[in-house]
Amino acid sequence: TVNDQLIAADTSLPLHGQSVLVTAGGTRERLDPVRYLTNNSSGKMGYALATAARKLGAKVTLISAPTALPQPAGVAYVAVDSAATMRTALLARYADAQMVIMAAAVADFRSPTVAANKIKKTATDYQLTLTKNPDILAELGQQKHHQFLIGFAAETQNLLTYAQQKLTSKHADMIVANDVSSPQVGFDHDTNAVTILQSNQAPQQLPLASKEVIAQQILQVALATRKLQA
Amino acid sequence: TVNDQLIAADTSLPLHGQSVLVTAGGTRERLDPVRYLTNNSSGKMGYALATAARKLGAKVTLISAPTALPQPAGVAYVAVDSAATMRTALLARYADAQMVIMAAAVADFRSPTVAANKIKKTATDYQLTLTKNPDILAELGQQKHHQFLIGFAAETQNLLTYAQQKLTSKHADMIVANDVSSPQVGFDHDTNAVTILQSNQAPQQLPLASKEVIAQQILQVALATRKLQA
Repeated sequence: TVNDQLIAADTSLPLHGQSVLVTAGGTRERLDPVRYLTNNSSGKMGYALATAARKLGAKVTLISAPTALPQPAGVAYVAVDSAATMRTALLARYADAQMVIMAAAVADFRSPTVAANKIKKTATDYQLTLTKNPDILAELGQQKHHQFLIGFAAETQNLLTYAQQKLTSKHADMIVANDVSSPQVGFDHDTNAVTILQSNQAPQQLPLASKEVIAQQILQVALATRKLQA
Repeated sequence: TVNDQLIAADTSLPLHGQSVLVTAGGTRERLDPVRYLTNNSSGKMGYALATAARKLGAKVTLISAPTALPQPAGVAYVAVDSAATMRTALLARYADAQMVIMAAAVADFRSPTVAANKIKKTATDYQLTLTKNPDILAELGQQKHHQFLIGFAAETQNLLTYAQQKLTSKHADMIVANDVSSPQVGFDHDTNAVTILQSNQAPQQLPLASKEVIAQQILQVALATRKLQA
């Protein structure tokens, strides 16, 4: 669109010409052609971040697990489903990215085997052995060069403790932490309230607001930090 | 709306004044506040059936697991999530229903315990023991009086064999069978192709069409059968 061309041509925008990868949605880990394990992610926070980065001039690639949301305008869209397919899509684009925002809710576990046909009910219980998925954020942190790496922590308890551990152990530049047990916060809501953690900085709280506003604020904080580092 | 009032008042419609229960969507079986086990159901077939029954004059109650679809007009809507909540909603309304259409994809298994907080990743594999859910269709079949009971069978192999077993063992009046491994059929598609099984009748195939058209055809077959029985 004309609007997209205007944004792309505006060299005054803070993310002009930069590649930003955003992941969104909840990955689906299949047991068989019909059943899968997933989580509450609606994709709204990631999609809002993709749109916000685009408005700041970035070349955005949105790597998305299935959601009910329309594809954002002016954004390259890569459809994935499982954590494994999301990981592949990310690693293929990581070297060329200036910023990576891991807003997706990536499943920690998957079934090591996926049945070719629908598993039939049995009379007894069903024993499922799940195996741990690769830790994508940790991998990206280990391979980090120039990239500004933003992770998310969604917790129901000990939020800041877990988020601080994540910041350090994953070598992320920023962790956006939200307490998904709070009302109107996180998964599936149109609003969010988060705490931003960065090393050597006090936690910054972003109070309850629409996910669009929270997305803009997250990027503002990230840009301010990157300026300090540069 | 005026249109709803006109439909409700039209005594010539074949389902005038009759209560029809429709289930839709894929149930969600929680492991913790964040993770759940579910299936590919989009809810489209059930929502199309609810709308089609409404247009035939029925008082429709749509008992729906979470979907991305808007609530159909002129239909009472009951939001549920797990198989257990869907079962409760159905049993409370079963005695007063003339027709029950079980289009939902009800999970066969659930976690017997739901963790109060998000389960943290461990270094090892994660062992999950799932327990069998109550067989809602079988329960409704056992308690059947005057109700016309329609079940669905979604399979990836041996479709008609499994569907025929379901018809008999669940005491359903009709099984709508679809091969979800076929292209453009079943879960998440806007089109469907099904085979209708009824006792003492040859299978009837409804070739590929929109789910709206398939819904109308299913109800036509059901009404024709009920007329024969009466």
